[in-house]
Amino acid sequence: MSDGLLVVISAPSGCGKDTLVAGAMKKMPGECFLSVSMTTRNMRPGETQGVEYIFVSRDEFLKNIEEGNMLEYAVYGSNMYGTPIAPVKKKLSEGKTVFLIIEVEGGGNVKKIFPEATKIFIVPPSMEELESRLRGRKTDSEEAIMNRLCIARQELQRAEEYDYIVENDNLDDAIDDILAIVRAQKLSINKMKNKVKEVIYNA
Amino acid sequence: MSDGLLVVISAPSGCGKDTLVAGAMKKMPGECFLSVSMTTRNMRPGETQGVEYIFVSRDEFLKNIEEGNMLEYAVYGSNMYGTPIAPVKKKLSEGKTVFLIIEVEGGGNVKKIFPEATKIFIVPPSMEELESRLRGRKTDSEEAIMNRLCIARQELQRAEEYDYIVENDNLDDAIDDILAIVRAQKLSINKMKNKVKEVIYNA
Repeated sequence: MSDGLLVVISAPSGCGKDTLVAGAMKKMPGECFLSVSMTTRNMRPGETQGVEYIFVSRDEFLKNIEEGNMLEYAVYGSNMYGTPIAPVKKKLSEGKTVFLIIEVEGGGNVKKIFPEATKIFIVPPSMEELESRLRGRKTDSEEAIMNRLCIARQELQRAEEYDYIVENDNLDDAIDDILAIVRAQKLSINKMKNKVKEVIYNA
Repeated sequence: MSDGLLVVISAPSGCGKDTLVAGAMKKMPGECFLSVSMTTRNMRPGETQGVEYIFVSRDEFLKNIEEGNMLEYAVYGSNMYGTPIAPVKKKLSEGKTVFLIIEVEGGGNVKKIFPEATKIFIVPPSMEELESRLRGRKTDSEEAIMNRLCIARQELQRAEEYDYIVENDNLDDAIDDILAIVRAQKLSINKMKNKVKEVIYNA
């Protein structure tokens, strides 16, 4: 058992998971770490190595998989995306709360390696609201929006694999929900066993 | 599964469980209900029927046990104390958060009847601090204090039967801990299954 808390966040596209995690981390300055994914896709203008992603070659990515360095990974289109395990372990050993934003697909694998991970699934207030948010972005074609909604519905079916459900209706409320979950998890008996022993035996 | 949340609070004597629960309830006005225990002990001056306790005769108490009306009960000295089940069930069905302050002994029984109950154990910062708080009360003899500390140590050994541990060092922090646990528990997948279904199927 590591000292820190591993928090896995998944959500259908358009549910605001990145904004939510950024908001929650802002309210816990110095206590958190956001895991940066590794990818084989090309760096885009304005992106920085190690900030948005750790950009590597396909060979390097495959070598990391072979060597067991990846917590989870997946292929999207012609590119690979995944989570290197080492920084997560390091930050957990420092007692940090580590946020991991991953696809629903990767969730199961994380739970195998870190059974004590706290898994949060973000849901939209409704499918209509999700659709209107996706349209509001004005980045996707009609076909892409329909595709995202279809995938969202499939992903929502797997919400029961998660420990907590946070509805992102009001952003501030949803951030406070995440903060409450993190606070409560730190008070769970698994994390507090040592405190109890300390009280009993250090007297 | 009832709609509300049942929160069981236990702690060694002197850990401030009553103050803590009162403080937490004050911050959730209208949402909570504090279960009132039934007792066979005599009403003291200043006490009101149904406020501090539901005062009943020994026969009435025994009849309630026989009829299966008690969630848990115990004998202290020559008096009986217990929790009537009906008001707890009623408030839970109304969606309330019901606080149940009970002895460590009663905790196991509650979990049998309400397996989804959230169990919180309050610990003092240290045994020294607990001792100094018990002395500060100036109500107990030296022997009574030593007895309370001995029982406290035994009760702390059973803290692992609880879901969460809250250290009552700073009162406001401990109240916020309880509020965070309640908020998180309401977001647990068991409580949120219907919300997920609503999003998937009401679209």
